[in-house]
Amino acid sequence: MTKQLIFGHKNPDTDSICSALAYQSFKKQLGENVEAVRLGSLNKETEYVLREANVDAPRLIEKVEDSIKAVILVDHNEFQQSVDNIRDVKITEVIDHHRIANFETNDPLFVRVEPVGCTATILTKIFRENNITISEQDARLLLSAIISDTLLFKSPTCTPEDEKIARELADIAKVDIEEYGLAMLKAGTDLSDKLVSELLAMDAKEFTMGDAKVEIAQINAVDIAEIYTQQEELEAEINKVIEERNLDLFLLVVTDIINSNSEVLALGNRSKHVETAFEVELLANRALLEGVVSRKKQIVTKLGDTF
Amino acid sequence: MTKQLIFGHKNPDTDSICSALAYQSFKKQLGENVEAVRLGSLNKETEYVLREANVDAPRLIEKVEDSIKAVILVDHNEFQQSVDNIRDVKITEVIDHHRIANFETNDPLFVRVEPVGCTATILTKIFRENNITISEQDARLLLSAIISDTLLFKSPTCTPEDEKIARELADIAKVDIEEYGLAMLKAGTDLSDKLVSELLAMDAKEFTMGDAKVEIAQINAVDIAEIYTQQEELEAEINKVIEERNLDLFLLVVTDIINSNSEVLALGNRSKHVETAFEVELLANRALLEGVVSRKKQIVTKLGDTF
Repeated sequence: MTKQLIFGHKNPDTDSICSALAYQSFKKQLGENVEAVRLGSLNKETEYVLREANVDAPRLIEKVEDSIKAVILVDHNEFQQSVDNIRDVKITEVIDHHRIANFETNDPLFVRVEPVGCTATILTKIFRENNITISEQDARLLLSAIISDTLLFKSPTCTPEDEKIARELADIAKVDIEEYGLAMLKAGTDLSDKLVSELLAMDAKEFTMGDAKVEIAQINAVDIAEIYTQQEELEAEINKVIEERNLDLFLLVVTDIINSNSEVLALGNRSKHVETAFEVELLANRALLEGVVSRKKQIVTKLGDTF
Repeated sequence: MTKQLIFGHKNPDTDSICSALAYQSFKKQLGENVEAVRLGSLNKETEYVLREANVDAPRLIEKVEDSIKAVILVDHNEFQQSVDNIRDVKITEVIDHHRIANFETNDPLFVRVEPVGCTATILTKIFRENNITISEQDARLLLSAIISDTLLFKSPTCTPEDEKIARELADIAKVDIEEYGLAMLKAGTDLSDKLVSELLAMDAKEFTMGDAKVEIAQINAVDIAEIYTQQEELEAEINKVIEERNLDLFLLVVTDIINSNSEVLALGNRSKHVETAFEVELLANRALLEGVVSRKKQIVTKLGDTF
């Protein structure tokens, strides 16, 4: 069988990278010809994870090469979040924990989507259902993905199953979950070497809501105020992106990972939707969303409903 | 928790009915509040199955009532094959074995799609993974669905897993698989009391291919020629449907379940696509497709590629 690629979404986060790597291990143990790849640069958090796990980063691809006939998607399904030529290849599998939208295939395929906090939680179940051993290294990768997506179990997207599986993985990985988790999350908030344009693109996803194109970028921080010292530069860059990509709304979500709040910055001709969705008033284009940390569960759903 | 409905596609076949019933059993054993329902009349095969299993038919619904907030789809995902007001309700689960298309949700959900021959095969795995006992009655329902969808293991959609699971279910159901299977399939070919319009609607599905609206109806028969003694009436009715529903192509597939061939009748302004897709010439709008028995695997895919 010809090689299949496994990859997560553009602007990959720790789940997209680690789930691709862990699923590669799983498939190789079954004798399948697969390669985990990535669709963008690693963030600081993921760099920390791979360094601690002593694992090389997956190969970066711009598009799926002609020689590849089939791919496996992890941690995403919406085509606009996937590789640019996704419509030209056969998708044989999807393992994901997001809503399904802007996704279709011509052929039956294998799909496993569950409303849990992290793709790695589903993958851990798949390892077990198939009696495939989880190595210490894979356990660390899977655990890191869960810590990242659930903000160390503090996000409302975190289910009891995520936490239970994470604690079991921590035993296999021989990791102190609180200590390692905090160090990992903090590593991700080191943005000292980032240009403003890089900050905005780091963890940005595009959504279609009604007839509107909406981009939602998220930045995790220990100190929200520090990010907004650059508000002027951020706004200039966001307005550039809105114009270039013809967006109706750009929402920057800066999330305080210690206190579990977010302060958003909304620009674009549909920014009023943010006020409606969250019952807040934008002051200088900004608003504090108390207790909001999850783009998927607390932002996309509510904002989508207003379009 | 308020009640959730479980249903298969419009023009329900044995898999759509039996999988809804079996999944209802599964959910009830977990203490969940669910009801299996159906979106259309039972065919003769399914009537035979329910009679032999001593199970009442699920309740017929026209639309999801306002009091119902959430539904579970089995054996389909494409919205045009689902209940008319599917976009107004929350879909919490999909268990299916078809391609994914024209399907989307606002929220994360539970999806289990596998490229096997029958939804019931996946459901049997789900029973086992959750250590839920499969009763003799549920085993018969699940087995019947697999026999129906795989034409007693002769369809190219049948995988080794379908056959293996079917034989295990036959043991639980205490059924002679060949004898029961043939009787069941033959019961389905009794069309003596059907109006032409009913014949065409019995197992019809609509697909969007490129910019075209395509309806593919399938009839299982022991004697293809007998169906086509009514070709004139069939064409008149099909042309009426094409006009009413603004279809680009109506493909009637009459399948010989003994010899595993199909003779198709194609009408509509895109009927040439049938000739291209299957490298045949339509004579009097008809063509024999040697070895073709599966709409999903041998017709939708090839035909879709030409649009």
